[in-house]
Amino acid sequence: MSEAVHAVILAGGAGTRFWPASRRLRPKQLLPLAGEGALLRQSVDRVLPLCGPDRLWVATGAHLVDATLTTLPELPRSQLFIEPAARNTAPCIGWAAHVIARTDPNAVVMALPSDHHIADVGGYRTALETAVASARQGVLTTIGIKPTHPETGYGYIEAERSAGSVWKALRFVEKPERARAEAFLSAGTFFWNAGMFFFRAGDMVRAIAEHLPLLARGLEALDAAALLGTEPAQLEAIFPTLPAVSIDVGVMEKMGPLAMVPGDFGWNDLGSWLTVSELAVKDAAGNSAPPGVVFVDAKGNHVTDLREGSAKRVIALCGVRDLVVVETDDALLIVHRDEAQHVREIVEALVARGDRELT
Amino acid sequence: MSEAVHAVILAGGAGTRFWPASRRLRPKQLLPLAGEGALLRQSVDRVLPLCGPDRLWVATGAHLVDATLTTLPELPRSQLFIEPAARNTAPCIGWAAHVIARTDPNAVVMALPSDHHIADVGGYRTALETAVASARQGVLTTIGIKPTHPETGYGYIEAERSAGSVWKALRFVEKPERARAEAFLSAGTFFWNAGMFFFRAGDMVRAIAEHLPLLARGLEALDAAALLGTEPAQLEAIFPTLPAVSIDVGVMEKMGPLAMVPGDFGWNDLGSWLTVSELAVKDAAGNSAPPGVVFVDAKGNHVTDLREGSAKRVIALCGVRDLVVVETDDALLIVHRDEAQHVREIVEALVARGDRELT
Repeated sequence: MSEAVHAVILAGGAGTRFWPASRRLRPKQLLPLAGEGALLRQSVDRVLPLCGPDRLWVATGAHLVDATLTTLPELPRSQLFIEPAARNTAPCIGWAAHVIARTDPNAVVMALPSDHHIADVGGYRTALETAVASARQGVLTTIGIKPTHPETGYGYIEAERSAGSVWKALRFVEKPERARAEAFLSAGTFFWNAGMFFFRAGDMVRAIAEHLPLLARGLEALDAAALLGTEPAQLEAIFPTLPAVSIDVGVMEKMGPLAMVPGDFGWNDLGSWLTVSELAVKDAAGNSAPPGVVFVDAKGNHVTDLREGSAKRVIALCGVRDLVVVETDDALLIVHRDEAQHVREIVEALVARGDRELT
Repeated sequence: MSEAVHAVILAGGAGTRFWPASRRLRPKQLLPLAGEGALLRQSVDRVLPLCGPDRLWVATGAHLVDATLTTLPELPRSQLFIEPAARNTAPCIGWAAHVIARTDPNAVVMALPSDHHIADVGGYRTALETAVASARQGVLTTIGIKPTHPETGYGYIEAERSAGSVWKALRFVEKPERARAEAFLSAGTFFWNAGMFFFRAGDMVRAIAEHLPLLARGLEALDAAALLGTEPAQLEAIFPTLPAVSIDVGVMEKMGPLAMVPGDFGWNDLGSWLTVSELAVKDAAGNSAPPGVVFVDAKGNHVTDLREGSAKRVIALCGVRDLVVVETDDALLIVHRDEAQHVREIVEALVARGDRELT
């Protein structure tokens, strides 16, 4: 049995919730929203001890290749999966599984998000190792995050309680209403779906063949093209036609036996500026900001300063509470932390008035 | 009797309440805080029809001469009273009275602030004309602003009700407590002291001689120096030694018969960013801002953008209320409008940490 473990970091995300920090060419995973450095950089560093530099893959969009390689300068271009079009996660993960299976169908693949925050990296790695060991047995495996509050913004995984570290996943559950989320929380058998999947490459190839035959046909055509040395050209032609479906919905939910490793390692999906402000290191008044920001009678505010100019302007907040302030070289955002989910409406307004270069 | 009317605009004010717009070298009167153009520019333009360009004087500090002449490019340097040191208003107004009295003791002088806002310029000019006519009779005259609310931040003038347009001022009253301010408001015989004074030059020379003999002695020395052509050198030596007292306290309060013209012309002293935001033109949501600012679910906010760079950054406010946002090339202020009086504490904090160039 192969001992090889590959990591496929999904770093093609777009999103407008972190405007003005995030832009079309600088999406969330390339930003230092929590911890040190870009989220993608941290995501890679977290898994490198498990897969090594030669089996570390990053999947992203063609328009993000330059920025991704700037963030990960050590990554060979040959370890990028460059998606010609955004087709959700199943085509991308399936393509990666096919490519890896060409040489090592027994290799275990960890398909992981690039834009989350993990507080307890040691605990995270332990969970990954458990999930990898499970996948190595031929069982598609996921990690379920132990919920800390009745969140209505995530999908859940219901699992069968077990004394061991690998539980049986019973079903995927859509984002619940509040009352249901509270019931999930108290039940103790519902976990957040964090989009972390573990499988042997050949197992995923077979699962896609069974549940997403259209996708399988496209990926098999890419396998054939690879033998002929025409994969790049075929990719451009085929990839945009692949069904745009998530791996959760397209494959995982349809599988019979699925394993779930409960995870409790300070996971946060950084959904908005609110969560970024919650994770930031605060002073006694609950303010978080880079050095130099002046606070007068101000509480619970968060300042992110991404300006690159050498002569930064001083920022002063007086008599305000619970604001998030984000500075970039070409934009200033002031948003109440409880309204952070509406930031995308600013982007829509900018697009509507033709200010595309700001989005 | 001389018909000449002089205006002396007092433009030496400092102040930190309008940081970051206001700085040591760019105080309030040089800022466009309400209406079109710098407040000093507007103050001059309001009185020019009454005094003409040759009898328009501006008093300011040595460090503000360049900025003042940039704001008033048509003003001959010889019509500046350049105070070598800040000594409150009596030395400056007294000096102006002495200088004007040297050639025309019967000329009427209007001593006026440079940093207030007047909504009804026509009504203002009518009040000035009434006050000038009163002063021409040899009576020191002031304008009392009809109060619109029980303000506790201003001094008051109690006057004797009259059917005419010139009332008799009985006494100056210090800033009152709230209950007293409310009684003043309902009495109808109390007016705000807006620091507008009218007098024949010779009358003021005599009043100072009577009530501020020390000041009179210094100013008489300047008169003598002027005859010898040594006034500039003597000014540097004498002015900093003059008693630092306001014309209100030093002269006006001590005078016997004083006239007061009731004024009701939309006067506003622009005491803080709160009053600036109140005067600004608002949209349907109560926001006031330059074109291009994006508001999403934001109400009652005010944005002042004084950046000079050609590539201005976009400003977006989301889910916030009653904020004042001020942008300059080197600073950003975010203050709740009801806390605007605390802005000076930011300046104190910057001074304390050595950021003098930002103050």
